[in-house]
This record gives sequence, C-alpha cells and structure tokens, in this order.
Amino acid sequence: MTKLRFTISMALDGYVAGPDQSLEDPLGTGGEALHEWAIGTRSFRAMHGDEGGEAGLDDEHAARWNRGIGTTIMGRNMFGPIRGDWGDETWNGWWGDEPPYHTPVYVLTHHAREPVEMQGGTTFHFVTDGIESALERATRDAGEHDVLVAGGASVGQQYLRAGLVDEFEIHVVPTLLGGGTRLFDDLGDALVGYECTELVSSPVVAHYTYARRGC
Amino acid sequence: MTKLRFTISMALDGYVAGPDQSLEDPLGTGGEALHEWAIGTRSFRAMHGDEGGEAGLDDEHAARWNRGIGTTIMGRNMFGPIRGDWGDETWNGWWGDEPPYHTPVYVLTHHAREPVEMQGGTTFHFVTDGIESALERATRDAGEHDVLVAGGASVGQQYLRAGLVDEFEIHVVPTLLGGGTRLFDDLGDALVGYECTELVSSPVVAHYTYARRGC
Repeated sequence: MTKLRFTISMALDGYVAGPDQSLEDPLGTGGEALHEWAIGTRSFRAMHGDEGGEAGLDDEHAARWNRGIGTTIMGRNMFGPIRGDWGDETWNGWWGDEPPYHTPVYVLTHHAREPVEMQGGTTFHFVTDGIESALERATRDAGEHDVLVAGGASVGQQYLRAGLVDEFEIHVVPTLLGGGTRLFDDLGDALVGYECTELVSSPVVAHYTYARRGC
Repeated sequence: MTKLRFTISMALDGYVAGPDQSLEDPLGTGGEALHEWAIGTRSFRAMHGDEGGEAGLDDEHAARWNRGIGTTIMGRNMFGPIRGDWGDETWNGWWGDEPPYHTPVYVLTHHAREPVEMQGGTTFHFVTDGIESALERATRDAGEHDVLVAGGASVGQQYLRAGLVDEFEIHVVPTLLGGGTRLFDDLGDALVGYECTELVSSPVVAHYTYARRGC
C-alpha cells in the first residue's frame, strides 16, 4: 500500500532553514550546512546524474529519497523563487534540465500552470486545490510505490498537522544555525501517534526514523 | 585548566522538559522519557550507590557526569520545588541522604541559606550573587577538575549566553514532547564560536559534543 513519507535535514537547534532566507539565499544563512552530509553520497550523486560518491550509512539514507518513491510533492518555495503568478513560465526549478526526482512532482501553488515535462522522468504538475488533492493525485500516480514529501518545512508541517504522513525521517546535523525556520513548531499533538523505529548515526549526522505506532 | 561543562538531555523536537511542569511534576508531561537512556547504565547506577547496570556507549557518556568533575552548579528548581524563602530548611534535594553528585554543589538562588553537608561527598552551597560568582567559587574548589552545570535548562542557557561554557553535550532522544521548555531559545549568537567534536549514537540516544572552536 502506498505510504506518504516525509524527510528533512535539521540543525541540532531545530532549524530546517537558516535566518534571513531570501530569493537569492533560499536556505537562509548557513543553511547549506544542513545538506552537506548527503552531497558526497553515491545516491545523491546518482540522483543528479553523477557517478562515484561514498557508500555506507549516510548513503543508505540518502537512497530513500528515490528508492521505492513513485511520486513527489513539494511546496512552491522549494520549486523556485517566483511569487505570485508564473510570468513567462520559463522557470523550471533549480535543478537544470534533468531534476533529481525522476518521478511526477506535484508542486503546491495558488497559481495554475500547465505541466512541465523535464528530462529523466520528472514532470512538474501544479496543484492549486490543496494538500489533500495533491496527495490524492500523487497516490494515484505512485502505483505500488510511495509518495515523498520533499519539502520545504511548511509543506511538511501541513501534512504532519493533517495527520497524513505515514513515515518521516529527520536527519539531525550538529550545525547550530541560531535562527531561521523551525520544523517542530505549532504542531500541537499531531505527532502523538508516532514512534521512533530507527536511530543511527555517522560522525556527521544522526538519522531518526518514525512511523505510526503499530504499523 | 578547569573547564566549565554543561550537559543535558533533549527531545528531538527541542524540549528539555515537557509541557505543564509543576511542583509535583518537575520534568513536565512525558519528561521522564528524556532520561531513560541513562538510568540503566553502570555509571548512573554507581552515582546513585547501586551496583550493576549496562556498560557500552551510553554508559561512557553517562560517566561524564562524574568523571573529572570537581564541583557542580545547578539552578534552584533542579534542587527542589520550594519557591521563595527556605522555610524550615528541611528540604535537602530530591536525592535522599546521599545525592549522586559526590562534589560540592553550588545552588543558584535568591535566598540565602547555610551550606548543607550530605553523605557521599555532596555539600550544597547556596549562592545568591549570580552565575559568575557561583562559577568563581566552583572553579576555585574544583582544583584540577572541571565544573559541571547540571541544569536545568534556564541555568544552562544563562551560562551559554554569558559565553562561559567551554564544552557542552546534548543527548538527543527520539521522544517527541510536543511542548515544554526549549533549550535552544533566545540564545542569539552565543553558540557561534563552538564546533561539534563528536557525534555518536546508540539505538536510543545520539550524543552531540561541542567545544570552543580551536580548543
């Protein structure tokens, strides 16, 4: 059965993006440190069409972004810096001609746009009628596979608050950002029904995996 | 040279005490889960005068509460539930006749009181003239050893903000408390000068150790 999975990297002080986020600096000050653990892994490189990279524990966790994933959901701010309507529609994401998703990607937005087919299996669909509708479409298209909420924080929080996430994984890096966007903010008792199913670490990141209790 | 060290257990969602803290429930709802990783260890048991317990990674980190520690500093709320003056002075802490510190303990308070000598090497001193004075006295009495800030969160934050902490260790457990007291709150840029020197984990807790950069 298709599951909804969410994964995000977090600084030890709770921030998933640094302070002073801007269109030019979408991860905020220092935010790129959140993702350093993944960049050298074999899986991350393969997602981006590169060879080589390191195997091992962190690679196994980076592999979960693609392995068994049939469709992807993301927020508009993760897709790009444009706010309001799409203008000339030349913006096709941060990732060049061949984005690392290799699946249909549902982009949550208030502004309609025709789907954009990229190379390597990624097609961006723009969903204007909310997170449940996006999940419905993503689940339908995922077939036997799972749906991944790729981020950002706000979209992850929306799915967590709505109780729609089946599994989530937090990659906690020792970075201290000192400010920015918190993941665990105003979630109320949305996380009461989850339990940690795995905690493992390398010298640069600890991976905490959660699933619904009893699943 | 004597260092000031601080150590605390934190839930993955950033809380070091649960919601609804009260005199009867000083750790807040669910807060006891923060300390479960330590309770079964050999070092924790030895500190409390018990034999047996588990060796291994978590035990090595629990051992740091005593090993090389010459004196201890704690906040008044960690010492006990009494607020205001000390009344009949019969309260001698939560820990019975032989507290687990086995060192002089400096209790930060606004209310003077004579020192209380307990069994096993713990003597409680009550310091009314602030965190720097407590540190001065604790450092003098620590000799060749280090000073440990045992908690709670507020006292740890005060020493971090003042830039007085040389090393700190955060034990991050997979518990999600959903509310309570955050450690990383309003610390401004107090942590900019620190770097992670060690990250290791067992299946129940990840230990993040920090020191001043270049030390």
